Amino acid sequence: MSNAAYERLKARFARLGALNEAAGILHWDASAMMPPGGGAARGEQLAALAGVTHELLTDPRTGADLEEAVAEGEWDQANLALMRRAHTRATALPVALVEAMSRANSSCEKVWRQAKQDADFAKVEKLLTEVVRLQREAAAAWGAKLGLNPYDALMDAYQPGVTAADVEPVFAAYEAWLAEALPRAEAIQAAKPEPVPMTGRFPVEAQRALCREMAERVGLEFKHARLDESLHPFCGGNPSDIRITTFYDEANPAKALLGVLHETGHAMYERGLPAGFARQPVGEAAGMAAHESQSLIVEMQACRSDAFLAFLAPKLRQSFGISTRIACAENLAGLWRRVGRGFIRVDADEMTYPAHVILRFRLERALIAGDLEVPDLPAAWNAGLKAILGIVPPNDAKGCLQDIHWYDGAFGYFPSYTLGAMAAAQLMAAIRREMPDLDQHLAGGDLSAMMRWLNLHVHGQGARLGFQDLLRQATGKPLDPGDFTAHLTARYLA
Amino acid sequence: MSNAAYERLKARFARLGALNEAAGILHWDASAMMPPGGGAARGEQLAALAGVTHELLTDPRTGADLEEAVAEGEWDQANLALMRRAHTRATALPVALVEAMSRANSSCEKVWRQAKQDADFAKVEKLLTEVVRLQREAAAAWGAKLGLNPYDALMDAYQPGVTAADVEPVFAAYEAWLAEALPRAEAIQAAKPEPVPMTGRFPVEAQRALCREMAERVGLEFKHARLDESLHPFCGGNPSDIRITTFYDEANPAKALLGVLHETGHAMYERGLPAGFARQPVGEAAGMAAHESQSLIVEMQACRSDAFLAFLAPKLRQSFGISTRIACAENLAGLWRRVGRGFIRVDADEMTYPAHVILRFRLERALIAGDLEVPDLPAAWNAGLKAILGIVPPNDAKGCLQDIHWYDGAFGYFPSYTLGAMAAAQLMAAIRREMPDLDQHLAGGDLSAMMRWLNLHVHGQGARLGFQDLLRQATGKPLDPGDFTAHLTARYLA
Repeated sequence: MSNAAYERLKARFARLGALNEAAGILHWDASAMMPPGGGAARGEQLAALAGVTHELLTDPRTGADLEEAVAEGEWDQANLALMRRAHTRATALPVALVEAMSRANSSCEKVWRQAKQDADFAKVEKLLTEVVRLQREAAAAWGAKLGLNPYDALMDAYQPGVTAADVEPVFAAYEAWLAEALPRAEAIQAAKPEPVPMTGRFPVEAQRALCREMAERVGLEFKHARLDESLHPFCGGNPSDIRITTFYDEANPAKALLGVLHETGHAMYERGLPAGFARQPVGEAAGMAAHESQSLIVEMQACRSDAFLAFLAPKLRQSFGISTRIACAENLAGLWRRVGRGFIRVDADEMTYPAHVILRFRLERALIAGDLEVPDLPAAWNAGLKAILGIVPPNDAKGCLQDIHWYDGAFGYFPSYTLGAMAAAQLMAAIRREMPDLDQHLAGGDLSAMMRWLNLHVHGQGARLGFQDLLRQATGKPLDPGDFTAHLTARYLA
Repeated sequence: MSNAAYERLKARFARLGALNEAAGILHWDASAMMPPGGGAARGEQLAALAGVTHELLTDPRTGADLEEAVAEGEWDQANLALMRRAHTRATALPVALVEAMSRANSSCEKVWRQAKQDADFAKVEKLLTEVVRLQREAAAAWGAKLGLNPYDALMDAYQPGVTAADVEPVFAAYEAWLAEALPRAEAIQAAKPEPVPMTGRFPVEAQRALCREMAERVGLEFKHARLDESLHPFCGGNPSDIRITTFYDEANPAKALLGVLHETGHAMYERGLPAGFARQPVGEAAGMAAHESQSLIVEMQACRSDAFLAFLAPKLRQSFGISTRIACAENLAGLWRRVGRGFIRVDADEMTYPAHVILRFRLERALIAGDLEVPDLPAAWNAGLKAILGIVPPNDAKGCLQDIHWYDGAFGYFPSYTLGAMAAAQLMAAIRREMPDLDQHLAGGDLSAMMRWLNLHVHGQGARLGFQDLLRQATGKPLDPGDFTAHLTARYLA
């Protein structure tokens, strides 16, 4: 049993959770539905919700109850610990700093759009310098309260329980592996015949129907979900009302299809969160790396496997009337599993994607530590990309201006992408050990057994365990990048 | 200038207004977008928002600031008075009563759906008795704080500044007029040839395009609006982001078209509210009767006029490929301006609609006063309908069970419909006096001059004036049902 203070906290966090869900629907609406003229009012609505939730979290009564509260049982104890962490994070910064960050991020992000368009870093240099200055201040304040190094305190917001000291050796090992593996993969690829490209027009209506069918194949029930369109695809909503979006390109059906499979992986995680702790901290996902592992295990591990491509190929032929020469498993693999050195992270293949993340991780860590200053960022970027991929971007739009993250004040997020990709491979290896016939399932378009396993070991665990403990419990070991390189070796170096 | 307490109040009400806007979008989403499985979570989200806004309004600091606050200038003084009224209404009831009402209304409303389906009043009699008991208690408490009779205190929630003593003589006069006018209108109608019905299939896509075009004709800019579908059409959203919905019946395009014109009238009111007082009480509409006057002046006064029907007829022919015999102004008038005695309020024509409202007004007033008890309601209903329209419903589903209002705890709302219809006629008479060539505009599908007049005299006034003062300022006199009967006389008794 637990005490009255904990019960009061549960009620307060339930309200907080419901208000966060409301904000989630408003964010989705702003991207997928809202008429353009509604933006200013939407800003007021979201600011009011953010204000109210911040006040709930930092209310002195919340602090007093957290001191008194006692919870029993693993789940409630984890819930209480997460409440304390949320309260600590919310109260660690002086209001003046929070407001200064909000203003600085917002100004910088606006100017960044123009700077990127003009490939002109100078335009945003001063504003980014101010963003970084405030991030350093916040990182120090959070770190002091959480007992973490400043950069770790920023990472903690996205991936609780993972530090730079965990990440650096994993990334260094990957960098070393890649230096040897990438040229080999390129040579193997070059020795094969070029895949036949998908050309022609792929009507939105047919794409939408196929995306919907594939999302259902993964396990998404549209009684609890929507699929809509937005410029930047995402997964929003809440566990009983999941909203995924995509963007249909009539010249290329792969973008929406693989994008929807990716977002469906996120959606299945949210759908499978423990309903008994809905709108409680422990009922949420276990961080962004864990979330990314679920989108990538669906998109990259399952749906780009030979087995699933064999299932998908006739579906593509039926949907778009294309030939077997184009829509066969082998040609799809050739099209959708190409490696290559590029400048743009979001266009990267699964083998080079981590290189982009490693570059950003090192640069942002140096920025926060004060070992790198903003004026030196473009040169450091270009040198870093040269070192890890052997290429230099022709301009900063294809270099350090490409991603919104830093310009919007999001430092410590980037590692999640690669931690997620590695975790996806590790989870898939564990699934394959338990289900030696997985490929037969995938070849029949059946992900149900795999999703049941993920539901049991990941989705249904909520935020009870940190990232490392979640992996340990699910796979018998903490993060092991060996499963990821083994996966890449099998796929690209065989 | 105004003092610090008033400035604090403005900030607090701005947040309140933003949270109410958020709830408005969530309500729209629940009707137009949400997957069915999202309902329970949506309930939690809306309850959290309602809880937070109630706490903001009843916060002791709000009360203290209201005592101290001084505002200068007509608008801010009206704003402060509306803040005081909102605070008084929110604090007048003990929390236990508010919660009891919420539970009783919710239970009763659920059972009412079944009772209506089964035409079995007994099923819901006890629950409605409890709803009425609590409404009496709340009406007395609100009345005591607001210096109003109990029933007037309920009406005040929907139509501030209008009392039963204002309404009863207006309704009595209408009843007397109708007793003489309705048989004459029926005789005139019977002497004319039957209109040719619209039959066939009217594709949703063509209906949607026509509805959108007509909404734009009225003045709606889709940069700030959406048109979607829901089971029960409504107008929601906020002034810069208006959401109207409709329901397309492929057998009958008139329903959606006239419904969209009606909702567009509501939408134009919201769009035209004073932007300088956005999210402040004085920046809202002047109550439900004023709102209904704006939907009806568009739908009934302007768009069912001979002049506008002449504009609409060729549009219908183009959209649906129907003959001139069916889609000509005269035949449309015959189809869309028919009088008749029916049991169902929402299906009633504009001449008999007030009879349905008068019946409900008298019954609900007697229920709140304790002059009528719930078990006697069905008999009182049937006797009342017999007296005013000469017909008796075959069962309670077509009688006292037909409307959701009472079963959901909404007493004092019904008069708004007819006050709105009367105000629409009065405003239109004023417009016609100032614009003798209005019909030429309408015949060209041009409502812009009329909408500019309404914007100036109604929309842009916000809630600065009460219903009667708004009419007085716009038309030179308080509510005068003579304009409404003159309109009906011209349309149905000529």
